[in-house]
Amino acid sequence: MMLPLFFIFCLFSSSHAAVQDFCVGDLTAPQGPAGYSCKNPSKVTVNDFVFSGLGTPGNTSNLIKAAVTPAFAAQFPGVNGLGISFGRLDFAPGGVVPFHTHPGGSEILVVVQGTILAGFVSSANTVYFKSLKKGDIMVFPQGLLHFQVNAGGSGAIAFVSFSSSSPGLQILDYALFGNNLPTELVAATTFLDTAQIKKLKGVLGGTG
Amino acid sequence: MMLPLFFIFCLFSSSHAAVQDFCVGDLTAPQGPAGYSCKNPSKVTVNDFVFSGLGTPGNTSNLIKAAVTPAFAAQFPGVNGLGISFGRLDFAPGGVVPFHTHPGGSEILVVVQGTILAGFVSSANTVYFKSLKKGDIMVFPQGLLHFQVNAGGSGAIAFVSFSSSSPGLQILDYALFGNNLPTELVAATTFLDTAQIKKLKGVLGGTG
Amino acid sequence: MMLPLFFIFCLFSSSHAAVQDFCVGDLTAPQGPAGYSCKNPSKVTVNDFVFSGLGTPGNTSNLIKAAVTPAFAAQFPGVNGLGISFGRLDFAPGGVVPFHTHPGGSEILVVVQGTILAGFVSSANTVYFKSLKKGDIMVFPQGLLHFQVNAGGSGAIAFVSFSSSSPGLQILDYALFGNNLPTELVAATTFLDTAQIKKLKGVLGGTG
Amino acid sequence: MMLPLFFIFCLFSSSHAAVQDFCVGDLTAPQGPAGYSCKNPSKVTVNDFVFSGLGTPGNTSNLIKAAVTPAFAAQFPGVNGLGISFGRLDFAPGGVVPFHTHPGGSEILVVVQGTILAGFVSSANTVYFKSLKKGDIMVFPQGLLHFQVNAGGSGAIAFVSFSSSSPGLQILDYALFGNNLPTELVAATTFLDTAQIKKLKGVLGGTG
Amino acid sequence: MMLPLFFIFCLFSSSHAAVQDFCVGDLTAPQGPAGYSCKNPSKVTVNDFVFSGLGTPGNTSNLIKAAVTPAFAAQFPGVNGLGISFGRLDFAPGGVVPFHTHPGGSEILVVVQGTILAGFVSSANTVYFKSLKKGDIMVFPQGLLHFQVNAGGSGAIAFVSFSSSSPGLQILDYALFGNNLPTELVAATTFLDTAQIKKLKGVLGGTG
Amino acid sequence: MMLPLFFIFCLFSSSHAAVQDFCVGDLTAPQGPAGYSCKNPSKVTVNDFVFSGLGTPGNTSNLIKAAVTPAFAAQFPGVNGLGISFGRLDFAPGGVVPFHTHPGGSEILVVVQGTILAGFVSSANTVYFKSLKKGDIMVFPQGLLHFQVNAGGSGAIAFVSFSSSSPGLQILDYALFGNNLPTELVAATTFLDTAQIKKLKGVLGGTG
Repeated sequence: MMLPLFFIFCLFSSSHAAVQDFCVGDLTAPQGPAGYSCKNPSKVTVNDFVFSGLGTPGNTSNLIKAAVTPAFAAQFPGVNGLGISFGRLDFAPGGVVPFHTHPGGSEILVVVQGTILAGFVSSANTVYFKSLKKGDIMVFPQGLLHFQVNAGGSGAIAFVSFSSSSPGLQILDYALFGNNLPTELVAATTFLDTAQIKKLKGVLGGTG
Repeated sequence: MMLPLFFIFCLFSSSHAAVQDFCVGDLTAPQGPAGYSCKNPSKVTVNDFVFSGLGTPGNTSNLIKAAVTPAFAAQFPGVNGLGISFGRLDFAPGGVVPFHTHPGGSEILVVVQGTILAGFVSSANTVYFKSLKKGDIMVFPQGLLHFQVNAGGSGAIAFVSFSSSSPGLQILDYALFGNNLPTELVAATTFLDTAQIKKLKGVLGGTG
Repeated sequence: MMLPLFFIFCLFSSSHAAVQDFCVGDLTAPQGPAGYSCKNPSKVTVNDFVFSGLGTPGNTSNLIKAAVTPAFAAQFPGVNGLGISFGRLDFAPGGVVPFHTHPGGSEILVVVQGTILAGFVSSANTVYFKSLKKGDIMVFPQGLLHFQVNAGGSGAIAFVSFSSSSPGLQILDYALFGNNLPTELVAATTFLDTAQIKKLKGVLGGTG
Repeated sequence: MMLPLFFIFCLFSSSHAAVQDFCVGDLTAPQGPAGYSCKNPSKVTVNDFVFSGLGTPGNTSNLIKAAVTPAFAAQFPGVNGLGISFGRLDFAPGGVVPFHTHPGGSEILVVVQGTILAGFVSSANTVYFKSLKKGDIMVFPQGLLHFQVNAGGSGAIAFVSFSSSSPGLQILDYALFGNNLPTELVAATTFLDTAQIKKLKGVLGGTG
Repeated sequence: MMLPLFFIFCLFSSSHAAVQDFCVGDLTAPQGPAGYSCKNPSKVTVNDFVFSGLGTPGNTSNLIKAAVTPAFAAQFPGVNGLGISFGRLDFAPGGVVPFHTHPGGSEILVVVQGTILAGFVSSANTVYFKSLKKGDIMVFPQGLLHFQVNAGGSGAIAFVSFSSSSPGLQILDYALFGNNLPTELVAATTFLDTAQIKKLKGVLGGTG
Repeated sequence: MMLPLFFIFCLFSSSHAAVQDFCVGDLTAPQGPAGYSCKNPSKVTVNDFVFSGLGTPGNTSNLIKAAVTPAFAAQFPGVNGLGISFGRLDFAPGGVVPFHTHPGGSEILVVVQGTILAGFVSSANTVYFKSLKKGDIMVFPQGLLHFQVNAGGSGAIAFVSFSSSSPGLQILDYALFGNNLPTELVAATTFLDTAQIKKLKGVLGGTG
């Protein structure tokens, strides 16, 4: 005759609340260097681990004719502390995701529609770029400048994944021209012409 | 007049070979705990960072009516040491990726076609599962048992991403029934009936 | 003549409260991805670093005739953040710690009484198992399914150590049969027979 | 009718050699910062994961009346890269493991026979010490000076575990007096008297 | 004609507060194992990333004729979580920074004035020491005992950098003689003579 | 009477070669993701831990009127695997270290002569910059664009430290204009004018 095993696990059960299988982020609590504080495990549901915001296309009616929709810990708290996050790229014809870096993580991109020309530049200043078709994946090592361009005549879609729950995103043009860094300082540290800097500051809302 | 900046970078250039932006795996050299040895950087090309093996459907003409195609460091050496890897899941109608774990990494799944019922079990033995539609993403924390089932009437496709370049893959049925672990030992450590064990050992090619 | 060195350390002393030699867990404060918040260092005593709960045998009067007593961060807050924890296994004759994983850490077991048959299964589905006698140690790599069985005629005792302060513990039977995961879903994702599943759900208190 | 699942796993099987479940150290190959190179997985057996060297008492017929037997990666290659290692302490009556540090890891000690007085000093120079009886465990945070003394009238035995496969071991007396560091330099950097230094250099085989 | 790019970044902007480029420490909030909680990013200014406390010489009018000024996370919260910190050493003629360890990080020292004799002892008890002149740098691996001595006739200055934002600092003399560790226990665990211990306890303010 | 302790350490001694206190890089052996292979410990001398290449000024007779001298693992193999490295910056009057990133580490700069205007841009595009005087230190978080400009009328010198032994260095101008990335692709991904791009390609030796 078989008897219940149930109570043999009582001891384990008492410690369940503290086992850190996961740490769903509590966006209202303080952050630490490793991420957000954990939501009370008793209030966690499956919906904390599912994110539906990537199911609809981003709005590409803008100058770059492209949209980036992140599912980082700030948008998808279920990934907090797990060393992974996700995102979606939409490109209208002619769309471009301009040069940018992710200071905190490496990236893999998969093309799910269209053709995308993608590339990165290494510390040795070598350029690695290639035209990717549907189903191709490409990896962009952490912290290096990279870009993605719609290389086909119609729309393109890609998903991107990161090796950090908060990889960060620094868009080159916005970092140089979209803030109050004085024009002469931009000129001195980039060797760009003053007229060029002022023109892009105008486009990107920068001052100074 | 403007003069070449070129030689100011001579000093940097001399150290380029050693900068570890990336470490494309040399599959023929010894591995260490952190991954494969690095391919000589001078022989690295863009093709080391691109993988095209996920562009075609896996063969689902099998019992589980599903296929898993990994792009881990062993298949895609460009991700070696970068803390990230990728894969593709194909499901025929009725297809199932049975209970399994990735001992070395967390996973995010994105549905690109069809409907997939996916879930995982926590250390506290709580089950988190949900039916995911196209564009939904779900995260599976490191090391926990999880599964994916085609929940629609036609084929389904998903991409999966991992927080490790070699996350590993332990399929429960194969671990229990697909090797030479003696039946009585499986029985003692799982509480399954001997007949059940022998039946699945037969299906999965196990002995003992 | 020798004068006091005392005041030369004043500067150091002022920063002592912030030096993170250790971070004794405050179980009442929020957790983050790296563990519990730290108890105020001024309230830390030697008793925070000593745990006496492993000195007495666990209760083996249960179906598995075994007991597992953890000293993880949740029971022994002194290990919080230090990447290490401990535990004790007691086996009555015939006792078994059934198949389980620790999603967050590797384990070393040392036999201190009796004979224990222990083993694990790799991602390649190779089984590694051996009968261990008093004083033998065995390592179980992170996240892999493993088990321990009393292989002698009398009681057995082991201590276990982990490479994480919260390694987690997922017991296979309990994950599959000890919750509300629907029987048909268990069947689909394990290939076990429905009768077998219902039988073990009955034993382990599962529903559905 | 049930058909073999066997070939559905063909794809997985081809990548098994590269999955880094473990990395048994090859002590004859070069080391890297993360540990030894991995032994060829096809030559790994269960004996790589089991170490029997801790089953017999160390020789305590020496001045400290104690013995330390390590099972670090250099002695037990199965732990290489897994972030864990082990050891055994034997104490004759009056035995002492003098002040030492482990630069690379935290430690947990469990008393299996006798009574041991153990302690450590924090960066804030607070001393935490306590007499431990059989079954008690104590944690020593990484890099801090600590000691263990047999506090009972008969022999004592302990097992120790570490949060690194190569935690290192720096014994204070040996570091100060067991090498060729000039006496005047020891005096200048420790404030010990020259006679005291020369006396201990004599005992420990130091020169200069 | 060029149109504003501005709104294409709206989506990015909404997540800016959560991007963990940095985590300036809030010294008034609880710490976790990874460091201090983060100051609200909206209140962070450039002054959080600049520390001016190393611009003036430390007071060397003391027995060791030297001063150590740390810029760890506790003094310079801008480094919290970034895996780096800094400090300054000042030496009067004859000045000495006695044997000490940093349990949590490796160190690089650069001589900016004078001549400094610096050294460390490895786990193998090998001593590595050398006289360093202005501009020389030396690395001290994590957790190992090391020292610095003014080797010239006039003052000397060095900057030191660490691989942790809270590397800790354990000064050997202070750990042994500057607290209430009983004299007989110090004697048993160091083999120093009782008279020597009492003498240094007197100098360093120790009791017992 | 006191007897030699010497032989009690025999056991420890046998394992010394394997203790990873440090891993001086062997630049001629293969690299892995964690760094260079370790030089044979028996051939390591103090000179492996000392680097004298920062003692002399770099040559600032170039367009940027500045010089960067790295002491990364490739130049200073003693830091391999220790999570730290160093460097020196020299500025003639008007000298500039233009916008750049370190993909693999955070940086602390200390001014040792002159006045330096330094700054970085966050992912949120906020600019943090300040004029630093002698003795001031500033931290630049990992992966973010930053710059340093000589803000005084005479020469300036700084030392820089990094939280990685191979932090990498990507100089913006060189990445955009110093390689064969086609002009139209630079234009599409930076929004710079074609004439501006061609002008800087000419200056920096780029083609295409």
